[in-house]
Amino acid sequence: MFYHVKELQYHAKPDRPDPLFAKQLQEVLGGQFGEISVALQYLFQGWSVRGNGKYKDLLMDTGAEELAHIEMLATMIARLLDGAPVGDLETAAKDPIIGAILGGMNPQHAIVSGLGAMPADSVGNRWTADYIIASGNLLADFRANLNAESQGRLQAVRLYEATNDRGVKDMLSWLIARDTMHQNQWYAAICELEAKENIVVPSTFPRQKEKREVSYVLFNYSQGDQSAKGRWANGPSMDGEGTFKYVQNPQPYGEKPKLMPAPKYIHDTLPAVLRNDDIPPNLA
Amino acid sequence: MFYHVKELQYHAKPDRPDPLFAKQLQEVLGGQFGEISVALQYLFQGWSVRGNGKYKDLLMDTGAEELAHIEMLATMIARLLDGAPVGDLETAAKDPIIGAILGGMNPQHAIVSGLGAMPADSVGNRWTADYIIASGNLLADFRANLNAESQGRLQAVRLYEATNDRGVKDMLSWLIARDTMHQNQWYAAICELEAKENIVVPSTFPRQKEKREVSYVLFNYSQGDQSAKGRWANGPSMDGEGTFKYVQNPQPYGEKPKLMPAPKYIHDTLPAVLRNDDIPPNLA
Amino acid sequence: MFYHVKELQYHAKPDRPDPLFAKQLQEVLGGQFGEISVALQYLFQGWSVRGNGKYKDLLMDTGAEELAHIEMLATMIARLLDGAPVGDLETAAKDPIIGAILGGMNPQHAIVSGLGAMPADSVGNRWTADYIIASGNLLADFRANLNAESQGRLQAVRLYEATNDRGVKDMLSWLIARDTMHQNQWYAAICELEAKENIVVPSTFPRQKEKREVSYVLFNYSQGDQSAKGRWANGPSMDGEGTFKYVQNPQPYGEKPKLMPAPKYIHDTLPAVLRNDDIPPNLA
Amino acid sequence: MFYHVKELQYHAKPDRPDPLFAKQLQEVLGGQFGEISVALQYLFQGWSVRGNGKYKDLLMDTGAEELAHIEMLATMIARLLDGAPVGDLETAAKDPIIGAILGGMNPQHAIVSGLGAMPADSVGNRWTADYIIASGNLLADFRANLNAESQGRLQAVRLYEATNDRGVKDMLSWLIARDTMHQNQWYAAICELEAKENIVVPSTFPRQKEKREVSYVLFNYSQGDQSAKGRWANGPSMDGEGTFKYVQNPQPYGEKPKLMPAPKYIHDTLPAVLRNDDIPPNLA
Amino acid sequence: MFYHVKELQYHAKPDRPDPLFAKQLQEVLGGQFGEISVALQYLFQGWSVRGNGKYKDLLMDTGAEELAHIEMLATMIARLLDGAPVGDLETAAKDPIIGAILGGMNPQHAIVSGLGAMPADSVGNRWTADYIIASGNLLADFRANLNAESQGRLQAVRLYEATNDRGVKDMLSWLIARDTMHQNQWYAAICELEAKENIVVPSTFPRQKEKREVSYVLFNYSQGDQSAKGRWANGPSMDGEGTFKYVQNPQPYGEKPKLMPAPKYIHDTLPAVLRNDDIPPNLA
Amino acid sequence: MFYHVKELQYHAKPDRPDPLFAKQLQEVLGGQFGEISVALQYLFQGWSVRGNGKYKDLLMDTGAEELAHIEMLATMIARLLDGAPVGDLETAAKDPIIGAILGGMNPQHAIVSGLGAMPADSVGNRWTADYIIASGNLLADFRANLNAESQGRLQAVRLYEATNDRGVKDMLSWLIARDTMHQNQWYAAICELEAKENIVVPSTFPRQKEKREVSYVLFNYSQGDQSAKGRWANGPSMDGEGTFKYVQNPQPYGEKPKLMPAPKYIHDTLPAVLRNDDIPPNLA
Repeated sequence: MFYHVKELQYHAKPDRPDPLFAKQLQEVLGGQFGEISVALQYLFQGWSVRGNGKYKDLLMDTGAEELAHIEMLATMIARLLDGAPVGDLETAAKDPIIGAILGGMNPQHAIVSGLGAMPADSVGNRWTADYIIASGNLLADFRANLNAESQGRLQAVRLYEATNDRGVKDMLSWLIARDTMHQNQWYAAICELEAKENIVVPSTFPRQKEKREVSYVLFNYSQGDQSAKGRWANGPSMDGEGTFKYVQNPQPYGEKPKLMPAPKYIHDTLPAVLRNDDIPPNLA
Repeated sequence: MFYHVKELQYHAKPDRPDPLFAKQLQEVLGGQFGEISVALQYLFQGWSVRGNGKYKDLLMDTGAEELAHIEMLATMIARLLDGAPVGDLETAAKDPIIGAILGGMNPQHAIVSGLGAMPADSVGNRWTADYIIASGNLLADFRANLNAESQGRLQAVRLYEATNDRGVKDMLSWLIARDTMHQNQWYAAICELEAKENIVVPSTFPRQKEKREVSYVLFNYSQGDQSAKGRWANGPSMDGEGTFKYVQNPQPYGEKPKLMPAPKYIHDTLPAVLRNDDIPPNLA
Repeated sequence: MFYHVKELQYHAKPDRPDPLFAKQLQEVLGGQFGEISVALQYLFQGWSVRGNGKYKDLLMDTGAEELAHIEMLATMIARLLDGAPVGDLETAAKDPIIGAILGGMNPQHAIVSGLGAMPADSVGNRWTADYIIASGNLLADFRANLNAESQGRLQAVRLYEATNDRGVKDMLSWLIARDTMHQNQWYAAICELEAKENIVVPSTFPRQKEKREVSYVLFNYSQGDQSAKGRWANGPSMDGEGTFKYVQNPQPYGEKPKLMPAPKYIHDTLPAVLRNDDIPPNLA
Repeated sequence: MFYHVKELQYHAKPDRPDPLFAKQLQEVLGGQFGEISVALQYLFQGWSVRGNGKYKDLLMDTGAEELAHIEMLATMIARLLDGAPVGDLETAAKDPIIGAILGGMNPQHAIVSGLGAMPADSVGNRWTADYIIASGNLLADFRANLNAESQGRLQAVRLYEATNDRGVKDMLSWLIARDTMHQNQWYAAICELEAKENIVVPSTFPRQKEKREVSYVLFNYSQGDQSAKGRWANGPSMDGEGTFKYVQNPQPYGEKPKLMPAPKYIHDTLPAVLRNDDIPPNLA
Repeated sequence: MFYHVKELQYHAKPDRPDPLFAKQLQEVLGGQFGEISVALQYLFQGWSVRGNGKYKDLLMDTGAEELAHIEMLATMIARLLDGAPVGDLETAAKDPIIGAILGGMNPQHAIVSGLGAMPADSVGNRWTADYIIASGNLLADFRANLNAESQGRLQAVRLYEATNDRGVKDMLSWLIARDTMHQNQWYAAICELEAKENIVVPSTFPRQKEKREVSYVLFNYSQGDQSAKGRWANGPSMDGEGTFKYVQNPQPYGEKPKLMPAPKYIHDTLPAVLRNDDIPPNLA
Repeated sequence: MFYHVKELQYHAKPDRPDPLFAKQLQEVLGGQFGEISVALQYLFQGWSVRGNGKYKDLLMDTGAEELAHIEMLATMIARLLDGAPVGDLETAAKDPIIGAILGGMNPQHAIVSGLGAMPADSVGNRWTADYIIASGNLLADFRANLNAESQGRLQAVRLYEATNDRGVKDMLSWLIARDTMHQNQWYAAICELEAKENIVVPSTFPRQKEKREVSYVLFNYSQGDQSAKGRWANGPSMDGEGTFKYVQNPQPYGEKPKLMPAPKYIHDTLPAVLRNDDIPPNLA
């Protein structure tokens, strides 16, 4: 169950409106690695943990915090949109700055949301649960989380570099710091789980059931052998279960597939037509 | 540029048709962590690397291999669909096994693809590029890759457990082994990059610009303090730049937001209406 | 900012597992009118209110409650999936009940989420922000909310009718009661706003700017005149600004459109080709 | 069955081309509350009515009219795109007005549709049936319709405010007037159904089956008690079946959920790992 | 503008309900090549034609007819759903036929649409305008139409083969015949346009501007030379402008791409890291 | 199985960066008819062919080539983005050219992909497998392919017209030439299959099972009889099986549909309410 307090986790006040930047900032609210994604990802992972210890609690702590980040960004975007102009080409032609705003802002910020933030990314794609990950295997999922915080911090940093507004920069410096913590925290949790299990997910599948002769082989499918110079092509494997091997000219292990004809009631192209490789006489 | 050879990377032949399992197997072909996702993810990352060394080559090697995995799965699914029945409730009522197939198989395998594999997941959602990640920052992206191979191997293992067909199990044992390699390889590449940079992505953003007082703090937003027992709440931070700290009762740093009224031409609810918190007389 | 407590708002424990019903129950978690939709809809509306009175507070109260409902449903679905079987056609053929489960359950509940709830509807479509509405105009949005609670209660009732499980029914009886309250509450809020403004949204657009001669006219575009018998075709209009009128044989007010040719660099079909309405001689 | 006449329902001719405004106007053609949405929503509702009286006829009348509105907007957008320029940065740099058009117009209007309207919204999201609602319960659905016409009129008004083109304004004044009628008409139909049934949808579910003790309770989940001042927190409920009640400090009715471990073949994180809340020795 | 008459274009009455088949039949209503797709495709093409002759009229004729087909299918599906059962595993376990229906039907037909047709395909994906095509170039678009009618008739035939219901077969025999006409009609229109223009779309682009040396070359990128035996590898090209040529071992015409480093403020992986191809000492 | 060589199929180097054009060029990379679409369409068709002759080989040849085109476009787009600026309104206000870039470029090119190409179209919609077609019937699918190459060449030509950059034009002249070949090749393959089968797809469905009396009839559903002047309304049908016929005033063959009431547990509007067409007394 959740309680809401009206104060923001941190300040979210720009120096001045900037509808162009409001559009860009949507990326970290409603984009693939925006705050909606991490909030719902952590909460769904938490609700699915089949046990009630510290990992579940950590997920719920962080999921609840990310809800507060959605709130901060929604507030900031609404303020960046304060007094945003509307208009057509005639309006745009009169004033280059207004013109740049009208051409460059997200038109849905005026027409659809009435100058409010939207659950969408910086080009207007609505948020989708395609973005989130929850598998029931925590090592797998904490890797998803570490990635999400890495991508998210990268995007926040790029936005920080793109603005001169001190209020926006101040809020972003908070979010960037929290992403630093979240990268550290998932990293720590991953280390714990790797120490208890193994680096290969899932650790519970018996290794003899996999085709072990190719478990540590790098196949060189792209011409050139620069990739032979990496740690992944030399020495003991990272999971301590084998030795890396580099194959310069990988050959197929399988054969040319030949599929059976489809049943008649499917009305695929008939085998007789497929077998007949000549050019029909009238076309020859 | 790409060349195709007709032989499969590995065998893809089931013991017998099974349209229900064909539907399930679509998950690792066209689902969020299916082979289409990893193939295009690695290729797009590779094409965007701004430098031509071993990391780019590794991405192209692996991207090209994943194309071969799409091919193996497409072949296997077509064979699992061999001779799949079609029919209505009357047909289903006559034979419980046929009925189970008709009720449980993906109807598009008959109606749409004519017993071919589809670029879709196990419930029929078409594949979307929402699933893939390429940021230009390789440490971030290799974490995405390690996650993808972790989720992918987990799904392949679950499918392996779900079938009795030796041919399917044989192919899955190949794919699971390759996922073992790919987890090892991205793990190794991540270790290299973390050694050269720092574990926090991006490593190039000056730390003094982030709000450092909250860079290593765990806020306890979910009642109960189980999360205080983790490595993430104790000792030096994983990035070596600070010390973890646990905050039992996190308080807001910000204030209640109050937004400015919208311009009149937006036709949001008027400030006068919003301010008037009484119940209208005729409703009281 | 949000705090989470670990207790559920209400019990979420089924009498026994039922993976088929777990799939159906996803509809009110992650479907168009599921709890994710109402939670995010109310929160986004709340964050966008440009004023801090009772309407904003009501939105935040209810949005926070809906987060608790997501949690209850996620918990219930995970329990309905307890011990869900996996298997292929061979497994299905041995036991009709297992066969029905394997054919009828959502395969992603096993393969993807590891027996956890998913942010998806009952056929597996992932949740999308296409479902939510926040315009900045509260009367419009409260109507969206009343609709959402009407559709949501209808779906919950249909699910209630579909199960014999007393635990599930108990939880649904809670959600249905809350939907009763939420319908009542948005209804009351709508009455307040209609009393302060007008029933036509937005009330702030000057009526003389609209084409008033057709503001209260029912055009009979579907043959037959049953629709003439409704309140909408007789007497004063509901907004008190006009009189309803029924037009039996509506005629066009406009003319046949004729578009200008496209510029040459667009390479649309050339005007000369379009103008030439004869059949080419070799085809005649 | 449908017949088409070539005349438009109303004029759709702008004073002059304006590719920027063409992009914005797409919102009310192919957006969430555009004319495609209402046309298909009313038609699907009408086709599903299980009875042939005035409500079905009203739906078919209005659905057919909305098809005419799609046509008007498609015509208007094509004309706003007349002679739209194409070009790159070099072209843009030469003339600020051309530059504003090239930067601000929807590039698909040139590349994809060849200066025709698209079934998409103002940021280019293609129309999706996610937007439409048809439940078989007319009171629920008419509420959806009233909402759609409220949001739609709001968007049309915002577009009206944004243009100086008299031709566009003239067409919008028609559409706004029709939205006035449609709001009035669904309002009237709702009043009829509420008079015959009850305001709570569905009215046919026996009230004793819902958890009645919380059917009229406002839980204060957001700190601060502004929401206590509304009609929804005081007096008899709107449905006449109870009395509103305000709960200042809502407590959980449920308990902490504890999920059973997953079966072994799912390969979720093992219970032993989850139970082990200590920090592994090598990390401590 | 459109008028609706209440009679169906043709009968749409099954012999008996069949919720499983209702689900399958959704494919030709709301799938990629269902009636919604062709209706909106033809109408959007028609509205965009920049000229008012026979091609536009043909598009409007056929678009209006397809609306009638949506209506027939919506009616048929509602009747196939008559009295569809609802229930959980307990219900399913009691009667294998009911169990097959509950497992195999689309659960949204009960929960969401209340036994009405949905704007979705046979696996429940909602219809999307991603499916439709309108470019302003009629030869291109008529090819899209011929394809749509080919795919659509193929799907209708597969459904015809799958049912024993005489009422359903009767309706499908109508739709299949109309698809025969529509394939013939677009074929005829294509012949007319190819006679007036050229088979290559667009015909208006000066051929000397394309890289003519590869305009008629088949590159053998897939090992094996079966493709050398087709008409496409021999003789004059189909457009009469060149001669087909087969290249056994295609070589690259380009060079290895080398991208410039990204600007610092993008925070991609630094050039120094990318250049450093050694294994870091602590990993070697 | 696939091998990759690092050289590009053809050069992909612009004269100078142009982030606006990079955004436009995304259309032919990741749009509905971009290179991802044709690559995966041809490969999926090829993998599904149930026979191993020249048609399958042709599909694999061309599918592999299209992968090379994705690569060329990804390279070109990355180069067009070289040194793309970032910034807010303050930056934009200082320099009109920079302002035009910031307003007009795809913000995700900076924030998300770090100046790399994206699997998305020119307005930022991510690529989806909704775009691709593979039915198992080659005549149907080759028509889809001919359409794809027609739409694709049309879009490439429009982009060619829109740029002054000689490097971009050079690459496009290659792609346009290849589209010329691909239109010719699918055209040739279609001719072969039509010669072996019949122009109507599928050719294997017995004609007596379709409602032959309407197999060659043009119904005039759009007022005006321009469409009577086409080849499709006169003379023998294109498939040689009948004679075209034009029906001026098409009448319904069916009757008004009347649906049965829904079962009580669905809670649709009750029949009693639907039958009651009077206005309730309190509203009259």
